[in-house]
Amino acid sequence: MATTPMRAVNPATGEAFGPGFARASRAELEAMADTAFDAVDFLADAPGALLAGFLEDYAARLEGDREGIARIAHEETALPYAPRLSEVEFNRTVTQMRAAAACLRDESWREVARDEANKLRSTLVPLGGAVVCIGPSNFPLAFNGVSGGDFCAAFAARNPVIAKAHPGHMNTTARLFAHACAARDAAGLPAAAVQCFTDCDPADGEALLAHPGVAALAFTGSRAAGMRLKAACDALGKPASLEMSGVNPVFVASAAAEARAEAIAEAWAASVLLGGGQFCTKPGVIFVSGASAAARLAARAAESMKAAAPAVLLTAPVRDHLAASVAALAAAGETPLCGGRAASPGHRFEPTLFSLGAARARELRALVAGEAFGPLGIVVAVEGDAQLVDFARGLDGQLACTVVSDAADAAVRATLLGVLRFKAGRLLDEAMPTGVAVSPAMVHGGPMPATGDARFTAVGLPAAARRFSKALCLDRVR
Amino acid sequence: MATTPMRAVNPATGEAFGPGFARASRAELEAMADTAFDAVDFLADAPGALLAGFLEDYAARLEGDREGIARIAHEETALPYAPRLSEVEFNRTVTQMRAAAACLRDESWREVARDEANKLRSTLVPLGGAVVCIGPSNFPLAFNGVSGGDFCAAFAARNPVIAKAHPGHMNTTARLFAHACAARDAAGLPAAAVQCFTDCDPADGEALLAHPGVAALAFTGSRAAGMRLKAACDALGKPASLEMSGVNPVFVASAAAEARAEAIAEAWAASVLLGGGQFCTKPGVIFVSGASAAARLAARAAESMKAAAPAVLLTAPVRDHLAASVAALAAAGETPLCGGRAASPGHRFEPTLFSLGAARARELRALVAGEAFGPLGIVVAVEGDAQLVDFARGLDGQLACTVVSDAADAAVRATLLGVLRFKAGRLLDEAMPTGVAVSPAMVHGGPMPATGDARFTAVGLPAAARRFSKALCLDRVR
Repeated sequence: MATTPMRAVNPATGEAFGPGFARASRAELEAMADTAFDAVDFLADAPGALLAGFLEDYAARLEGDREGIARIAHEETALPYAPRLSEVEFNRTVTQMRAAAACLRDESWREVARDEANKLRSTLVPLGGAVVCIGPSNFPLAFNGVSGGDFCAAFAARNPVIAKAHPGHMNTTARLFAHACAARDAAGLPAAAVQCFTDCDPADGEALLAHPGVAALAFTGSRAAGMRLKAACDALGKPASLEMSGVNPVFVASAAAEARAEAIAEAWAASVLLGGGQFCTKPGVIFVSGASAAARLAARAAESMKAAAPAVLLTAPVRDHLAASVAALAAAGETPLCGGRAASPGHRFEPTLFSLGAARARELRALVAGEAFGPLGIVVAVEGDAQLVDFARGLDGQLACTVVSDAADAAVRATLLGVLRFKAGRLLDEAMPTGVAVSPAMVHGGPMPATGDARFTAVGLPAAARRFSKALCLDRVR
Repeated sequence: MATTPMRAVNPATGEAFGPGFARASRAELEAMADTAFDAVDFLADAPGALLAGFLEDYAARLEGDREGIARIAHEETALPYAPRLSEVEFNRTVTQMRAAAACLRDESWREVARDEANKLRSTLVPLGGAVVCIGPSNFPLAFNGVSGGDFCAAFAARNPVIAKAHPGHMNTTARLFAHACAARDAAGLPAAAVQCFTDCDPADGEALLAHPGVAALAFTGSRAAGMRLKAACDALGKPASLEMSGVNPVFVASAAAEARAEAIAEAWAASVLLGGGQFCTKPGVIFVSGASAAARLAARAAESMKAAAPAVLLTAPVRDHLAASVAALAAAGETPLCGGRAASPGHRFEPTLFSLGAARARELRALVAGEAFGPLGIVVAVEGDAQLVDFARGLDGQLACTVVSDAADAAVRATLLGVLRFKAGRLLDEAMPTGVAVSPAMVHGGPMPATGDARFTAVGLPAAARRFSKALCLDRVR
């Protein structure tokens, strides 16, 4: 069945540009999985230095094309060329790649344990099949299936990768993949070590996951798609690393709210608006203890948001999902303090702020707790610190949670941190959660629905490689 | 709804004895989960030395009652009093408990990473709810939900435990639990730190898993029950550690088979018969390269098995499942070389051996690949080393696989090890797999259906504790 080729769309203008990309057919996907076996043993047994050399060469080739890559990514995503794409995200990408190379050289990802008395040696090994890497719309380089964190972690654990190019940045991905192929071929790796396709029918994607040549899934994207893929992988008994959703709430204790409502409002609004509000760690909701402080905080946040231009969103679906979330709040009787409308040209939306009382926030729980990419923030005014703790206890799993407190808030701060440690992968004291450092001490994870499994992190090697490895004991094996 | 209390059955005689035990009601299970919250923060924040002291005191109390515990376990399971229960399994139990205490003292289970420059610290923390521990029939002490490996691993990661007593050893479990409660109370732990119930309706068990006071499941038992519980936990997004099934095949390369068929047969038959064939690592199938060597191996194994008395099986369901497996092979036209019948008194079964050609083994794959506890072994004669590798490639996930080879078999040995590293949690060179050392370098795991997730091990601290912990990053948290 022939389908119309897809073309990139410039989100700032709404205009299509560049070449057409064909969706992969089921036969093409199955051929990729068939050939993955060619690379499994090669990658499992190759010298670490060879594989590390591939990643380092890949990183060097990317750096040689830094401007070209960042420019096409900018055209496809409307994320700022500089510093966001050409510096911050670009550097993150090559840093991750070199960290993965270091893992391959020092074998730190293997977590070897030895017991000479019992003639035992345990080590992590690859999974024995390819990892399908499905990246998100919002990081065209650093979380791209063919160059991002999951690619690096899967390859650090010596697995072949089959990457899916996101429709929001197909040209960027093709350009990255060309560099990957050049480095792969220069290193003498099998072609199946890194493969890439451009979108597919969801049923064909599930058939790919079920193929014996595929051992695991790495997915970053929406909760709905992630939960569907999780069910498929769970039934197959294949590991799935799923980064899905969160509203990453901020909890402001009463003394801090009273003393610093305006400063907190500005820091929060800046974090909400960062990258067009399209960070998975966007603090979409802020719970503020005390009605008058909450009103001050909301008023100042509205001022900040009104002063900001409409955000250009990554794709039409991102804009439409945001518009639907805003419309649902409006339909429930809520009026935004600012914004609330799409804008043109392209996929734009006004910075939008709602302010709700605690009772309303409970009634509208599904809307308050549901992630919406884009420049949308919700202030929830709660009646005191005890109610702040109640909201913390009622949270779904989150990637990150922040506590803002002053010295007089010490008791509630401790209680909140005690509750939230089980709710989020990352706890922040004062700081807003946008910005996830590439560090071995980072945890980018959290309980479902933030991710599929709170035991893992998607950022920070060597721990992130553990997601794509298998435990093995060699018992008297010489 | 009142149900008839359950009484223990002596498997050697088939006679019921001792007091009646009531199945837990849904209300009782929910009350346990409700109160688990009382222990979550206490255990998360308690000094490690306090929690370690509890485990050490528990171990000491068990040692003070070694004979009494081993005797009642013997009466309920018919496993040998000595050395099996009173020494080997008893020592394993207290050794695991002390290893968990050491983890709590040295905090090695936390896997802390620090990044001072970014003000980050990552650490594993408890899951924030109880771990439901469901142990198997075959290790009344060392894998018991209230004293075994999963209990120790869950508690080492500071989680409360809700243990289910197996109907096959309710009196043993009650006796262990009494010591646990005495140690718990002496240490000043909340009552909810360790709770225990005696079996329940499966639907009530699923309701328990869904309760917010329950964070994870540890299960050791049948594949059918494990897969049902896996589906429940997967849908809830709660970690499930599932040790289910395996036939743990042995692969005998042609030169070794030719040179040593009889010696290999004796080692294999002894491993099959160990503990009545009721080890999860029983090597139920042996693939032998070369028809004449396979025939010699089968003949000698049959001699060994004929010389052995009928095994007393743990429970009537274990005996019935074994009888059904044997009947299915017979119905498919296979005649056992020896055994094949239940015996009396109690739950006995004759050591039973089948020998199949490769083509028949393929036709009867479901029977050959399906685990059956008890003294049943299957020899599969394959036509040469290439076919041996084919069978290895076609394997389901296993807890353990063994390769037996001579110097002339070096090439096929390497190929087999290369294939099997992705199929099993533990690879053995020459040695039979029964016997799982308690060691940090052990992996008791493997791909589904051996377990639910090949990334973990159920034996070997601190790694085993990772199954029941959550990753947390403290970001600028003082």
